[in-house]
Amino acid sequence: MAAISGFPEFLPQGRMVEMRAGDILRRTFELHGFANIQTRCLEPLSELSRKGEITKEVYVVRRLHAAETDKDDLGLHFDLTVPFARYVLDNAGHLTFPFRRYQIQPAWRGERPQEGRYREFYQADIDIVGQSTLSFHHDIEVCLVMLEALDQLHRDLGIPPVLMRINNRKLVQGFYAHLGVTDPLLAIQAVDKLPKIGPQATGEILASAGVEPGQIDQILALAGIEGDADEVESSLRAIGLPSPEMEEGLQELLALHQAVSRRHPDKVVIDLKIARGLDYYTGSVFELELVGNESLGTISAGGRYDSLATDGRHSYPGVGISFGLTRVFAPLISKGGLTASRPVTSAVFIAVDDEESREQATAVASALRLRGIPCEVSPNAAKYGRQIKLADRRQIPFVWFGGLTGQVKDIRSGEQVDADAKQWTPSAEDLRPQIRSA
Amino acid sequence: MAAISGFPEFLPQGRMVEMRAGDILRRTFELHGFANIQTRCLEPLSELSRKGEITKEVYVVRRLHAAETDKDDLGLHFDLTVPFARYVLDNAGHLTFPFRRYQIQPAWRGERPQEGRYREFYQADIDIVGQSTLSFHHDIEVCLVMLEALDQLHRDLGIPPVLMRINNRKLVQGFYAHLGVTDPLLAIQAVDKLPKIGPQATGEILASAGVEPGQIDQILALAGIEGDADEVESSLRAIGLPSPEMEEGLQELLALHQAVSRRHPDKVVIDLKIARGLDYYTGSVFELELVGNESLGTISAGGRYDSLATDGRHSYPGVGISFGLTRVFAPLISKGGLTASRPVTSAVFIAVDDEESREQATAVASALRLRGIPCEVSPNAAKYGRQIKLADRRQIPFVWFGGLTGQVKDIRSGEQVDADAKQWTPSAEDLRPQIRSA
Repeated sequence: MAAISGFPEFLPQGRMVEMRAGDILRRTFELHGFANIQTRCLEPLSELSRKGEITKEVYVVRRLHAAETDKDDLGLHFDLTVPFARYVLDNAGHLTFPFRRYQIQPAWRGERPQEGRYREFYQADIDIVGQSTLSFHHDIEVCLVMLEALDQLHRDLGIPPVLMRINNRKLVQGFYAHLGVTDPLLAIQAVDKLPKIGPQATGEILASAGVEPGQIDQILALAGIEGDADEVESSLRAIGLPSPEMEEGLQELLALHQAVSRRHPDKVVIDLKIARGLDYYTGSVFELELVGNESLGTISAGGRYDSLATDGRHSYPGVGISFGLTRVFAPLISKGGLTASRPVTSAVFIAVDDEESREQATAVASALRLRGIPCEVSPNAAKYGRQIKLADRRQIPFVWFGGLTGQVKDIRSGEQVDADAKQWTPSAEDLRPQIRSA
Repeated sequence: MAAISGFPEFLPQGRMVEMRAGDILRRTFELHGFANIQTRCLEPLSELSRKGEITKEVYVVRRLHAAETDKDDLGLHFDLTVPFARYVLDNAGHLTFPFRRYQIQPAWRGERPQEGRYREFYQADIDIVGQSTLSFHHDIEVCLVMLEALDQLHRDLGIPPVLMRINNRKLVQGFYAHLGVTDPLLAIQAVDKLPKIGPQATGEILASAGVEPGQIDQILALAGIEGDADEVESSLRAIGLPSPEMEEGLQELLALHQAVSRRHPDKVVIDLKIARGLDYYTGSVFELELVGNESLGTISAGGRYDSLATDGRHSYPGVGISFGLTRVFAPLISKGGLTASRPVTSAVFIAVDDEESREQATAVASALRLRGIPCEVSPNAAKYGRQIKLADRRQIPFVWFGGLTGQVKDIRSGEQVDADAKQWTPSAEDLRPQIRSA
């Protein structure tokens, strides 16, 4: 019993914050033509265990009374990208491409419990996937859609503004190839740790993997480049861009920076140490943090992948970005930064005179609900004072007395007026719980 | 890869049906003052494995790279009632009672895969829980709220009408005690199988558990009583109601039948073979089926429990009812009975003249979205004919040509008119995908 570390749960007020965030994401994604899907929470272990480092965090699932000879062959998904790729292959014949989907579901990782890390967490993902080809402008599109959603969360729920850091795998991998690094993915995974562990420790990882000192210096020099388009371009021109792959990566990076910064000035920066640990990215990569809350880490990330999903006949290149709902909202909710104005949906509490007239109170409630006003009938027929106290404890703003033509009391001001249950309406602000800073 | 038996997934059109159902349930429950919560999907195995027969279906969860010595101590929840009881105990100090919550989440059971049975399935539960006491009128309330929700699903989505069968554990257990049955719970679990396996097989189960032939006859006679309040009462008076517990159970049963049938005539029937297999029910029990689709089995069920949750100081009696979202909607969706009018949210497809003018198309899209109109910009700048064909394949009703003051074509009728992106609005029916019979 009681809390399990890494598995956050919220009181109803906190859950209301989380639901409102989900509603905002849903609305934004649907306005941009993304259709929702849900995938099963379990995938074959073979699918989950071939994505590199993450394997060790997978949760295996088996029936309690499974026979000893049964294989452990299912696991909980650790993100929404791997299941989505599988879903696209399963259903390719029934989808039209480019396929645009959003998905809001929990994922599980058996990470060592620590501040800001969760073992069960909700993600909100958008992806656009093509059949065989997918234009680059979709890289720009997913960034703009996610920034619009986060901007809405900022305006409606007061989460801090975001900063997006972008890079391009073609540029980085082209450079590593030019340097003669034999295992570019390993180098990328080492650089991915750079912001956390610093250049010296990153250099040591690279050295222990057989990367030569001269190469390490150049890898770290490239990773140190950061800034706006002009700054980055001139730093890179100084290196000389010795391969067409690097040139192509740079052009994409500049185009992405230009398009995103036109809509969201000061919200996007080129940062060549952004690597992303996952091996499937092949072009643009993005990472977002909350300004002033950088210690929360990456709250949203994604990128372009050209070969995550492939069947015999087609490849399904895609680009997507994921938002860590739990990572952002769990601390805001549990530390009380965000809450709802009341813990119940009811705007009105209908008093009951005596058990014989409960039916009358129920009729009032029905009349209010018919017009979309959430309400509840008193659980008891105690003295009015005690019923008002109960409504107050539930933070319900209004108490109704009498029948369809009765009286309604605002228990905050004490004002009590005649009211008709077929006409009276609370203010929009009182109708539903409001989300606000605690 | 590909489907795993018992883990249903839907195409976007099917998912739209499921989401609409979820929206209707959410709206109904919130109008009645139920607050949403979500519990973690994993519970300690010790909690999950002490609820009787269900234990053998529990899915155990452990980290792939857990040490050999680690204990298997977590499992996926198999319903939403057990986690809710635990949640109430964990948070009792922060909740006001009676606490009214709804919860819509997946649950998992490792059942033998068969038609209409799912290993991963969504449930929608409402419960009202008191601290130490909870009035009987809440038994009536949860039945009425669920019937209202199901009625809304019937009217909006065309699911068949429902029939609710009700019974009372006090009546049944009082009778078994009167008969001298030594293990009443075992008898209840046997009777729970009666509708499926018939009286003879039920009698054999009872006999093999040591119930005497005379007792078996009387158990089966009681279970055969069914009808409206008058019929049932006179059948029972013939038996004689030898205990106060039976009398109390009968009074509750009659009161529930009267209150529910007043609002929903012909939707509720007393049926003394309704038992519910779970051991925690102590009073009212309910089971609902879809009229004309009885083969689908029980699509909603619940009851009163007086001691599911208890800490040292208080018990938390409750009453709740659960609706099997997946059980009802998965067959309707997968057999194509219900679908959405289009597989994408977009109402408008914005044509692109050439890649240089993509920005102009994006500005049109922004203007439409600002007024809540979902839309998407063409992925390519092919000839208009090919762009219209793509919109048609995505079943998007309108194609926009030109800038903010441009033209919009209804591709079903072919009608094309001048339009201003800051003013033009599609009909309500075209704005969002409509759910309809296939």
